[in-house]
Amino acid sequence: MAKSNVEKVQQISAERQRDPERTRAEILQVATAEFARVGYSGARVDNIAELTRTTKRMIYYYFGGKEQLYVAVLEQAYGEIRAIEQQLDLKHLSPVEAMRTLAEHTFDYHDRHPEFVRLVAAENVHNAEHVRASKELGGLNSPIIGLIQSILNRGYRDGVFRRRVKAIEVHTLMSALCFYRVSNQATVKALFDYDMAAPTARRRQRLFIAEMFVSWLQDPHPGRVRK
Amino acid sequence: MAKSNVEKVQQISAERQRDPERTRAEILQVATAEFARVGYSGARVDNIAELTRTTKRMIYYYFGGKEQLYVAVLEQAYGEIRAIEQQLDLKHLSPVEAMRTLAEHTFDYHDRHPEFVRLVAAENVHNAEHVRASKELGGLNSPIIGLIQSILNRGYRDGVFRRRVKAIEVHTLMSALCFYRVSNQATVKALFDYDMAAPTARRRQRLFIAEMFVSWLQDPHPGRVRK
Repeated sequence: MAKSNVEKVQQISAERQRDPERTRAEILQVATAEFARVGYSGARVDNIAELTRTTKRMIYYYFGGKEQLYVAVLEQAYGEIRAIEQQLDLKHLSPVEAMRTLAEHTFDYHDRHPEFVRLVAAENVHNAEHVRASKELGGLNSPIIGLIQSILNRGYRDGVFRRRVKAIEVHTLMSALCFYRVSNQATVKALFDYDMAAPTARRRQRLFIAEMFVSWLQDPHPGRVRK
Repeated sequence: MAKSNVEKVQQISAERQRDPERTRAEILQVATAEFARVGYSGARVDNIAELTRTTKRMIYYYFGGKEQLYVAVLEQAYGEIRAIEQQLDLKHLSPVEAMRTLAEHTFDYHDRHPEFVRLVAAENVHNAEHVRASKELGGLNSPIIGLIQSILNRGYRDGVFRRRVKAIEVHTLMSALCFYRVSNQATVKALFDYDMAAPTARRRQRLFIAEMFVSWLQDPHPGRVRK
């Protein structure tokens, strides 16, 4: 005989008691999608509870409240892109190849995680209030600056990079190119009938973004007419 | 004796009958600020009426409704940036100088019009539904593509530009760099304690964005290690 709903819920509860980490991860995953879809104000914790077959009380038990859940979602999203960058093992590549690889991975992460782009865009509309509420996010993000700085240092030492810039400047320029391509797809498509998500456009943009940094950083007279 | 409120309103009404263009422009200006501040759903036509010392009925008479008012705001915002580009008189500059000048003006427009950036960001959150509702916007925006194409054509003809790209590709990359700098100021400040709006940061970014295009387009082996 099929199990009753009560029995099913009891079984899920028992599994969850054994694996709180998995439950927490499931809630975060569903909450990420929900916050990205309808924003912080629009999202309902009841909805997230239903989609994870848990309860509002359980979510509050794990995270503390809606705001803390949202902050945890942001921490996970930023944590993921920063973790991928740290795994790239750029030390064994030349400075030019390392910069190119970093640009390609930054591109790929934004391309594959439109929900990350939507969360960050929404945070900016609300003046980054939840990002500022997090004690973790600043420290979580600082490694990317160290990573870029070490590529730049090697490039200057070897004499291949000529354009002197700060790591945060490279980071914001690179993020801009990768972020806008996802965040502004709708208006660009509507205005110019150009689909930035189409495979050929995507492939070319990925190449161009990497090239722009490599050409610029190597240029002995950046921005001037070449002799 | 001071005029009564009724007399004041009558006087404004009389002026407006004489100058409907000015009234329309005033409503658009206030509506732009209001839609940029609170978004399409958040904005109240009653509020806009009060701030322009007019009535909801008058706004409906001029524009048709809230949605049409919003579309008119978008048309004016895009119309303004495109008009400035057309006034640049780039034909008398070398291709390199023309591209640099276009990048600088694109930067300046975004820098000085955060309300334009907020409107476009909000449109993207809502899948560009109002941009798509406009019959004007596509045609209004197409001149920038022609402008970039003519700079590229001159650069290829003279042999100074070596990297073959499409005008729409240059336009989206340039917009990305200028847009993100305004749209994502809050999260970048909160995460990295780096203020993209500060004068020194602003001056450097403006220079870098122009340089990136000029270095890249002139590079005979873009993205490779320079010999």
